[in-house]
Amino acid sequence: MEEQYMKRALELAEQGMGKTAPNPMVGAVILKDGRIIGEGFHKAYGESHAEVNAVKNASESVEGATLYVNLEPCSHYGKTPPCAELIIQKRIKRVVIGTLDPNPLVEGKGIAMLVKAGVSVTVGVMEAECKKLNEVFFYYIKTEKPYVVLKTAMSLDGKIAAVTGKSKWITGEEAREDVHRLRNRYAGIMTGVSTVIKDDPQLTCRLTGGKNPKRIILDSRLRIPLHSKVLQDQVNNQTILATTEQADPEARRRLEDAGVKVLVLHEKDQRVDLQDLMVRLGAMGIDSILLEGGAELNAAAVEQGILQKYIAYTAPMILGGGSSRTPVGGMGVQSPDQAQSLTFESVEQIGKDMKMTAYFKDRREDSACLQEL
Amino acid sequence: MEEQYMKRALELAEQGMGKTAPNPMVGAVILKDGRIIGEGFHKAYGESHAEVNAVKNASESVEGATLYVNLEPCSHYGKTPPCAELIIQKRIKRVVIGTLDPNPLVEGKGIAMLVKAGVSVTVGVMEAECKKLNEVFFYYIKTEKPYVVLKTAMSLDGKIAAVTGKSKWITGEEAREDVHRLRNRYAGIMTGVSTVIKDDPQLTCRLTGGKNPKRIILDSRLRIPLHSKVLQDQVNNQTILATTEQADPEARRRLEDAGVKVLVLHEKDQRVDLQDLMVRLGAMGIDSILLEGGAELNAAAVEQGILQKYIAYTAPMILGGGSSRTPVGGMGVQSPDQAQSLTFESVEQIGKDMKMTAYFKDRREDSACLQEL
Repeated sequence: MEEQYMKRALELAEQGMGKTAPNPMVGAVILKDGRIIGEGFHKAYGESHAEVNAVKNASESVEGATLYVNLEPCSHYGKTPPCAELIIQKRIKRVVIGTLDPNPLVEGKGIAMLVKAGVSVTVGVMEAECKKLNEVFFYYIKTEKPYVVLKTAMSLDGKIAAVTGKSKWITGEEAREDVHRLRNRYAGIMTGVSTVIKDDPQLTCRLTGGKNPKRIILDSRLRIPLHSKVLQDQVNNQTILATTEQADPEARRRLEDAGVKVLVLHEKDQRVDLQDLMVRLGAMGIDSILLEGGAELNAAAVEQGILQKYIAYTAPMILGGGSSRTPVGGMGVQSPDQAQSLTFESVEQIGKDMKMTAYFKDRREDSACLQEL
Repeated sequence: MEEQYMKRALELAEQGMGKTAPNPMVGAVILKDGRIIGEGFHKAYGESHAEVNAVKNASESVEGATLYVNLEPCSHYGKTPPCAELIIQKRIKRVVIGTLDPNPLVEGKGIAMLVKAGVSVTVGVMEAECKKLNEVFFYYIKTEKPYVVLKTAMSLDGKIAAVTGKSKWITGEEAREDVHRLRNRYAGIMTGVSTVIKDDPQLTCRLTGGKNPKRIILDSRLRIPLHSKVLQDQVNNQTILATTEQADPEARRRLEDAGVKVLVLHEKDQRVDLQDLMVRLGAMGIDSILLEGGAELNAAAVEQGILQKYIAYTAPMILGGGSSRTPVGGMGVQSPDQAQSLTFESVEQIGKDMKMTAYFKDRREDSACLQEL
């Protein structure tokens, strides 16, 4: 029973996907006399919280009701007053919570406030699902760095392109549409300048009603052509170029004049230090990034340990070719026991293709993530 | 209801897996007054058919009963008398059949014999499942060539070994045990001499009660070392070396003296012509082969069109390395639209790894397979 309403709260929460960052996705359901009398979710960053919306939408007085919410109600004054206070004030009798809010400003304080005021509280209903929905938020709030998802599209024989470099199209239409759902979900999208030069992609989200991700281009020497598609429309969707001191100051000035944001970062192996970049992007409020890189950038991301999740679309085709590119290049490890290890989370068929999702080791469980810090 | 008994017949049939080749796997269930009174399956090539065993095992008279069997009862004298005759003689009233026997000696004749004798016949219950269980038999009986299954084990980034060539172990214990189930299932196992030289594998089935596959080594110049593990125990499990006229006659004589079977085949691109090899192996009664090759042999198998099924074990690890080997090498195609296309059939997690199974295009449906001939 409890689970049924928590599941509904999660469904509501998901409707805010792509719009709440860097806030979490939250949904709330108000139950009275066995009937749902109010529902709400956090629609977008800066707008009112799920609890507020559920109370506002309630068809009758919420006094004596039970509130289901996937994340602990907040206890602090942020952009809105604390939800715990609202719950107490509206005389809601009981609150069922999916998981604690890992935000150090909240973390248990919301619950303490409710309990002190005599509200009955249950915590941990569908906790795993609640943590999973907000895995980005949980990671970002603790590390202040973006949650990075590596996305690759390969053939069944492990190639991201034919020997000629041609990669259009390995995966089918449905899988490519699914990538646009990822672009809607994550705050940023990142690729290397080589991909920009080769394919001139737009890196936008083409879903109806979707949001465009912040575009981040790795370009240690600022080789990007000014006419590239990702450099257009800088007023509405400014692109971030991540570069190093090696870049020509004149090129930098031209790009800044065109409205592009240029970040000059530390170097690592003569390229952009990705950990430094993550710190900078995190400070800019970017809580998550979809990495759609080539083999070399992907290898650097693996080696520098910035990845949390791997989504591998696999197409039922054989490209062959001893020298065709694979998802991750670089130097590689010497033997399988030195390999970067992951844990499969799920697999599903999307159109003709398979979508495998895996977590980088020790990142799956929030507890493990906390221990790392 | 019908499906419940056909499912049971399929379960029984499966118990003969690995032992009936080149016969199909068949199971039979006898139902009377709503109770199962007899069950049986074809245990091994040369032994009695499923129908005979079910009648023999029946706890009472089968007169007036219904027989469920996944494949059409035979109508011809082979190693045993026709089952259709037995059914008529025992006065079984009704026969429910999964699928027609594609064997040109039967194909509808069994059913015709039954119907003529007044037995009521239903065909096509769980037909897809019945065809799938005997996909090897269906292919072999029509083409007289072995059904070839390509098996690869790769990392999530598409590598079959680290840059150093080390591949122990990419997949986990459970997946490697599953490979032994495949070795039990398919009649032969095939690899190239390079793999034999590099790894010196046994290529046996290590399952308790499992059968060893016939070992087939591609070795166009007979470079195989005489002390290789696959060349031992030639009395109980003779190895087949597939070679060409380029091989040294002296090497051939030494191998034949050691009890090894040497096949001299046509050449294709200075290597063994795989289509010629399939014809020869088919004529020797080998109905199916598990291909555990390196990148180059796998590429030749793809290019020469001898493959029906692809089983790709994928391990949640990243090996990296721009020059690491992938499952299929060779020249490769120029662009994705020229790629060999497959259709995913299933995916399942085995231990820590994923097992993806796909069919080479137009081989999945038996009808499509027939059209090709």
